[in-house]
Amino acid sequence: MDQPIGVIDSGVGGLTVATELMRQLPKEQLIYLGDTLRCPYGPRPKEEVIQYTMEMVNFLLKKNIKLLVIACNTATAFTLDLLRETLDIPVIGVIQPGARAAIKVTQQMRIGVIGTEGTIVSKAYPEALHSVHSDIEVYDLACPRFVPMVENGVLEGDEAYQVVKETLQPLKEKQLIDTLILGCTHYPLLKDTIQAVMGNDVTIISSGEETAREVSAILGYQELLYEGERLPEHAFYTTGSWQVFAHIASQWLEIPITTLETAYLTTA
Amino acid sequence: MDQPIGVIDSGVGGLTVATELMRQLPKEQLIYLGDTLRCPYGPRPKEEVIQYTMEMVNFLLKKNIKLLVIACNTATAFTLDLLRETLDIPVIGVIQPGARAAIKVTQQMRIGVIGTEGTIVSKAYPEALHSVHSDIEVYDLACPRFVPMVENGVLEGDEAYQVVKETLQPLKEKQLIDTLILGCTHYPLLKDTIQAVMGNDVTIISSGEETAREVSAILGYQELLYEGERLPEHAFYTTGSWQVFAHIASQWLEIPITTLETAYLTTA
Repeated sequence: MDQPIGVIDSGVGGLTVATELMRQLPKEQLIYLGDTLRCPYGPRPKEEVIQYTMEMVNFLLKKNIKLLVIACNTATAFTLDLLRETLDIPVIGVIQPGARAAIKVTQQMRIGVIGTEGTIVSKAYPEALHSVHSDIEVYDLACPRFVPMVENGVLEGDEAYQVVKETLQPLKEKQLIDTLILGCTHYPLLKDTIQAVMGNDVTIISSGEETAREVSAILGYQELLYEGERLPEHAFYTTGSWQVFAHIASQWLEIPITTLETAYLTTA
Repeated sequence: MDQPIGVIDSGVGGLTVATELMRQLPKEQLIYLGDTLRCPYGPRPKEEVIQYTMEMVNFLLKKNIKLLVIACNTATAFTLDLLRETLDIPVIGVIQPGARAAIKVTQQMRIGVIGTEGTIVSKAYPEALHSVHSDIEVYDLACPRFVPMVENGVLEGDEAYQVVKETLQPLKEKQLIDTLILGCTHYPLLKDTIQAVMGNDVTIISSGEETAREVSAILGYQELLYEGERLPEHAFYTTGSWQVFAHIASQWLEIPITTLETAYLTTA
């Protein structure tokens, strides 16, 4: 079906999901909207996250999307159920796919989750894990220093290593976990550093990859895959500066951006 | 939702899928039906595979299943579309999940597929791969000696190694592929031997694991997951000898089987 897939995020972190969607579903067209102006969502109150997310959803619905990906963990935690009830297109969040992937790989049934304050306080990951498997032990940890660090482009080197090491100390000690969910779409950009700190015995789950697979499964199952031969033209929108957005997208993720516009969001 | 998941297979191979379902969805109840009496399906004509599969489906529909897993690649290749059109419950085959998982991991876009004659001749894997990604190079190979070997319990050692090595030679030489799909649910039982022959540079995709994840995704998406607290009681049916079935299940897969009965299949 030749309609685009909509992807929303609080900012640029969701580009890690978009990259995986392009890789795993190279025929599909994406419309990405990042609310860079109001990023981060992590420390904001629930009502505000819901309001901002609904504004983004309304913007994309006007673009005739066939499926919505909430590529932000905080927004998923607070709006997934609501959006599934109210929209008549499939809605995929980043939390359930990450949780399912972690259950697939854990051997000791001890899973760590790191994310923003909002995501961790919401307990969305423990709920998603326990809805599938009651006996999983979940160790969750808010990492408020990671998003600002990533937004400043500090992804590796001594400073990144020190911050990651200090932050993850509670999960690292006593070898509590064998699997760690990156419960924030910014964190895959720190994956190498996180893996170095946690050691190779811990399997790291990146929700972007897993979410792309779930999108693929749902599109296939619902017979919504595009099966023609046109090449996709992705469109990117940001509520903030498009220069910064374009810089980050090309520097970090090597996403070729041809269409990039500023989005002005309004309530309903 | 407290209805069982139905799993059908030509024999015991689908137990590799059932094991993964139990691991990834430990709250869900399974009803497994293996057509051991008429196994293997691989060399049979299409019409016969369709007829036998429909008989199995009718048997399970009377057990009030909420979702059907076709845990046999040959049956998936020949009946998935038909069953999706005619049944009003979700139907998951083993081919699409394996194809999607392979696309996720391949770096060089060169994927090998091994399976029965029926599965390979049907071209179901190349079609599934190309429907998602036009540029994938697919190298497929029928391995008619593997199922009889597995059914005879030859899973490792010199004989298994020799047969696997001779059979896979066309894929092994020239380092054609970086990913290999085990397109038959018997093959995961030979996984160690296949990995030894192909070398560690080739990532092996086992459709059982992937299918269980897709079942989890669809049940979650359709809000069909069981969320109560009762422990599951799985039921197993075979059209052949239950002694042989029970022996294989306990020897290979350590599946605890409490309920095992003989199924008498009839047309419609």
